[in-house]
Amino acid sequence: MPDKKRFIAVIGGSECSPQEAELAEEVGHELARQDVILVCGGLGGIMEAACKGASSQGGVTIGILPGGNGKAANSYVQIPIVTNLGEARNVVVVKSAQAVIAIGGGYGTLSEIGHALRNGIPVIGLNTWSLSRKGQLDSSIIPAQSPTEAVSKAIKLITE
Amino acid sequence: MPDKKRFIAVIGGSECSPQEAELAEEVGHELARQDVILVCGGLGGIMEAACKGASSQGGVTIGILPGGNGKAANSYVQIPIVTNLGEARNVVVVKSAQAVIAIGGGYGTLSEIGHALRNGIPVIGLNTWSLSRKGQLDSSIIPAQSPTEAVSKAIKLITE
Amino acid sequence: MPDKKRFIAVIGGSECSPQEAELAEEVGHELARQDVILVCGGLGGIMEAACKGASSQGGVTIGILPGGNGKAANSYVQIPIVTNLGEARNVVVVKSAQAVIAIGGGYGTLSEIGHALRNGIPVIGLNTWSLSRKGQLDSSIIPAQSPTEAVSKAIKLITE
Amino acid sequence: MPDKKRFIAVIGGSECSPQEAELAEEVGHELARQDVILVCGGLGGIMEAACKGASSQGGVTIGILPGGNGKAANSYVQIPIVTNLGEARNVVVVKSAQAVIAIGGGYGTLSEIGHALRNGIPVIGLNTWSLSRKGQLDSSIIPAQSPTEAVSKAIKLITE
Repeated sequence: MPDKKRFIAVIGGSECSPQEAELAEEVGHELARQDVILVCGGLGGIMEAACKGASSQGGVTIGILPGGNGKAANSYVQIPIVTNLGEARNVVVVKSAQAVIAIGGGYGTLSEIGHALRNGIPVIGLNTWSLSRKGQLDSSIIPAQSPTEAVSKAIKLITE
Repeated sequence: MPDKKRFIAVIGGSECSPQEAELAEEVGHELARQDVILVCGGLGGIMEAACKGASSQGGVTIGILPGGNGKAANSYVQIPIVTNLGEARNVVVVKSAQAVIAIGGGYGTLSEIGHALRNGIPVIGLNTWSLSRKGQLDSSIIPAQSPTEAVSKAIKLITE
Repeated sequence: MPDKKRFIAVIGGSECSPQEAELAEEVGHELARQDVILVCGGLGGIMEAACKGASSQGGVTIGILPGGNGKAANSYVQIPIVTNLGEARNVVVVKSAQAVIAIGGGYGTLSEIGHALRNGIPVIGLNTWSLSRKGQLDSSIIPAQSPTEAVSKAIKLITE
Repeated sequence: MPDKKRFIAVIGGSECSPQEAELAEEVGHELARQDVILVCGGLGGIMEAACKGASSQGGVTIGILPGGNGKAANSYVQIPIVTNLGEARNVVVVKSAQAVIAIGGGYGTLSEIGHALRNGIPVIGLNTWSLSRKGQLDSSIIPAQSPTEAVSKAIKLITE
């Protein structure tokens, strides 16, 4: 186990485009290189790609599953947490991390972004949602142009 | 109890402007007039104003509380559900409704919008978030210009 | 809605013997007669029988469902709360009540008894679990010999 | 990380006697020696003693916390899962394990035993609850006389 315990969540859809999967895999790869433990929802798509990337570098991967069976975890999850809580597990994913990297994503990802921002957990976005409230842009999601930049920004925010 | 069981959630911040509170109270008022049961998070701000409006018309109000003590419910909640689940209760609020009306709102409300849309539960917005994804406007939140329009649109979507 | 808001949970298996169903129905009947709102897990067996008894007297019934679809509620549930939390909803059932009446029951009921006692919520037992810890009888579950006695004891404990 | 992923939960009170702490520490020690990952509720008492024992042998320890702050974890938890779900996290503790070892314990532990047995997850007991239902002894909790026997029985049940 890494000595300094840093946990970063990667969130995104259980289905995604090949381009998004590539981004996620590079994010996972870079997190592991930086000795950061990867937290995710444990399923396919973005989650699987990120876990694959982390595993390829010997990183630790945690999958917080919505269902009641650990076997639903993607094959790169080392620590499956079996919640059977459905989408309420989204809260657990973001709260177990010190920063969140959102890649693409659907409405489940949007709920996770909301939970993270509500808890003061920074969110870095790669090609994901952007938000306006009452006609004004909300710039809480910190944009990144590349996986390396996303990881670098996330780690910097944790360390500060 | 109303015969036809229709449940609509009103979501929004536990702190809000007087203008938003007025909108929420009118929404609650109108829901009760239409024999719709009001579901909310049970606390202050938008939630309290909506419950107050519903109560003034003899409506039924359900408050799904994040904490462990029913006494935290605003005084217009008739049915307090005590979850002690923290923000994971947001999922329960939206899933217990057939449509959601979002008024103003912060990041907790954003998470509820995400959970609702993820579950195919329609969201009507009054001066709330607007969303873009990957540079494209997402028009899933149905805008309303007034409390009456919001309730009317929500009921229409349930009935269809 | 009753003026004095008293909530009592009835817990027990989703499958039960005809004798247990009769006990549950009488408990529901008596709760409604005493203007107590019935909380339960919303499914069949003991839960359905208790809701049936309460409904026959015009009582209010709340069903806190483990699944994601309100249609799973038994037909006597007036207020379905849709959690999709699986068994974690057991905590919500007991915490939303001021006292709990356990009838028969399996391991799910046992978990609810544990959650109730952990929270200082009194548990009245009708033909249910009895507990020993480290070789010594634990008498926290208050025995009752009849539905009427169970309801009477539960209401007395709330009022005190 | 161990190659064969076996997860066993150790459950028991956040306060315990020195004798119980010793039992828990030996259980943790033995789990780590057998390359089993330890799951627990992450707090003090039995949980801390078990994590301490596992850590002393280089074992991996997961703490599934009820609160919203990872800093509440005992200092031997390597993987803190931050749920903010209160006691609903008890379900996550047992479902994330393939077997459960209960040591001493109060009503929270009783709820976990109920959740485990409800899910068909075997429970080994060291000086813990014993159960009767409707006047008949329920022998679902498998007794063990020592930490080594508890771990050995738990592993055997997983492997079968």
